[in-house]
Amino acid sequence: NSQLKIFSLNSNNPLAQEIAQEMGVELGKSSVKHFSDGEIQISIEESIRGCDVFIVQSTSAPVNEHLMELLIMVDAVKRASARTVNVVMPYYGYARQDRKAKAREPITAKLVANLLETAGATRVIVLDLHAPQIQGFFDILIDHLMAVPLLSDYFKSKGIPTEEIVIVSPDHGGVTRARKMAERLKAPIAIIDKRRPKPNVAEVMNIVGNVDGKVAILIDDIIDTAGTITIGADALRAAGAKEVYACCSHPVLSGPAIERIENSAIKELVVTNTIQLSDEKKSPKITELSVAKLMADAISRVYENKSVSTLFD
Amino acid sequence: NSQLKIFSLNSNNPLAQEIAQEMGVELGKSSVKHFSDGEIQISIEESIRGCDVFIVQSTSAPVNEHLMELLIMVDAVKRASARTVNVVMPYYGYARQDRKAKAREPITAKLVANLLETAGATRVIVLDLHAPQIQGFFDILIDHLMAVPLLSDYFKSKGIPTEEIVIVSPDHGGVTRARKMAERLKAPIAIIDKRRPKPNVAEVMNIVGNVDGKVAILIDDIIDTAGTITIGADALRAAGAKEVYACCSHPVLSGPAIERIENSAIKELVVTNTIQLSDEKKSPKITELSVAKLMADAISRVYENKSVSTLFD
Ligand SMILES: Nc1ncnc2c1ncn2[C@@H]1O[C@H](COP(=O)(O)O)[C@@H](O)[C@H]1O
Ligand SMILES: Nc1ncnc2c1ncn2[C@@H]1O[C@H](COP(=O)(O)O)[C@@H](O)[C@H]1O
Repeated sequence: NSQLKIFSLNSNNPLAQEIAQEMGVELGKSSVKHFSDGEIQISIEESIRGCDVFIVQSTSAPVNEHLMELLIMVDAVKRASARTVNVVMPYYGYARQDRKAKAREPITAKLVANLLETAGATRVIVLDLHAPQIQGFFDILIDHLMAVPLLSDYFKSKGIPTEEIVIVSPDHGGVTRARKMAERLKAPIAIIDKRRPKPNVAEVMNIVGNVDGKVAILIDDIIDTAGTITIGADALRAAGAKEVYACCSHPVLSGPAIERIENSAIKELVVTNTIQLSDEKKSPKITELSVAKLMADAISRVYENKSVSTLFD
Repeated sequence: NSQLKIFSLNSNNPLAQEIAQEMGVELGKSSVKHFSDGEIQISIEESIRGCDVFIVQSTSAPVNEHLMELLIMVDAVKRASARTVNVVMPYYGYARQDRKAKAREPITAKLVANLLETAGATRVIVLDLHAPQIQGFFDILIDHLMAVPLLSDYFKSKGIPTEEIVIVSPDHGGVTRARKMAERLKAPIAIIDKRRPKPNVAEVMNIVGNVDGKVAILIDDIIDTAGTITIGADALRAAGAKEVYACCSHPVLSGPAIERIENSAIKELVVTNTIQLSDEKKSPKITELSVAKLMADAISRVYENKSVSTLFD
């Protein structure tokens, strides 16, 4: 078998370190610096000839910087005669630009897939893509992991009586995810149904399903400015929920997100570490769970040529 | 004939405006904004179906931001059914990473060429690539313009007696460029020959050619931190040059560049506007010449399917 090497770029070094530790290996020696004019200078400081190389990088903010780091690293790894170039993207940036919603829009999620292939990636490992269709944007192999088991186990461990729990999707697009979590917690689901009765009239939050007297757990893939989730929490309280928790895979948490969460009806927000939280984004309300073991298992299985699909549920 | 449309992105709007004015057209309506998390949001606000579209963007600093703007715009233009997608890059960033100088280096200049093709560019127009070989990194059509005529005409207009002028290349790589300028000014050339006699011994600046009592004009493609050019100017003065001018196509001018130039033996630095100079980079020593007419001519010729090569000299 050829040798396994894991490299970290700059977006999420703590997670890459943790993954390497889980696997009992050291991270490969490399550095990402900048020339005086800001151009990226990558250097790989050990031989990777014939190796199976895994590059850990989330394309979180600053997304363009992190994406270019990744593309240049893939180019360097390919040209250094690696056997396979595997891109581990715990968070896939630009995933929300996945279709033309209006005329003359780009489809940047597809562009990113093409750029990764062009640079020389032979396989990608991702987690909770905003739309599962993005898998089809790749012609190379893709493994798609899910954080639902991790999030569900955390809520199980809180000991909330099962009959009190309801899992809530903040919109119709997230129902499949909510249902997966509901199955694991043996709980019913509810859906927040936003409707604008007429143009220029405020949206109405209608809750489909019973939340009265219950502990509601909102689940989403990405929480960005936290508008949807905090308004949703208010609507759940108004409909009689006694407590509201929220969880997501990818804590983008941009702009007013932290302030909104801290001032919201949300009791606790549970996130994963696919995106590294800067110090200003840490909050006593936010609990971080690590995907390191999940990612490490996926890397081991890809490396040993075993099925990754058992990690899905 | 199909319709011509010129769009500007964010790196050099004044140049794009000037190009459009030269051609007697309006810039196409588009905007580049950012979502709350920093992802680029491009919108094209007029139909470009069936058009020949030219996108003006230099990949100057912040290079990764400007490159991603360009790739996403190319994707959007392609998907909006443009007939051709022409990328006008007055300055081609990452051009210096054009070969593996050490083991396991990326070749980012080639990566960028591949990314542009993958995004959907059908042709590129560039000016003074750091190495002309970069033309061969593209499989799509490429037009390669030169600023030497523009720079030469400026120095001609200064009325320095021809017999006093010597054109100086700051290194061996730039001799062809210096010779082209020398031909236009009917002047001889000289070359600065940097050598390190032994490891850990300071470099020696040896000047090949006669500069004694002359007006020396240093010419380079890129001036970045301005170390080479200002040390070269000192060496020319030490060798008896009575005045030293410098010129380049691309004023990157990063880090200590402005300070070095202002404190140097250089009397005047002549640059072009392929890279937009921020206010802090304007200096009484720096003269900016516009490549707008050159670029406008190239765009017209490409659009009318005429030879661009007459613009070379
Ligand atoms: N980074 C972003 N931040 C906010 N909205 C985005 C972003 N990228 C794309 N979008 C928009 O979000 C919509 C997709 O969201 P969704 O309906 O949840 O799939 C698209 O119509 C995009 O215009
Ligand atoms: N943005 C940059 N700033 C400074 N040096 C660079 C940059 N990009 C590449 N280089 C280095 O410059 C060398 C090429 O310069 P040259 O010998 O002038 O062609 C390469 O060996 C690169 O390592």
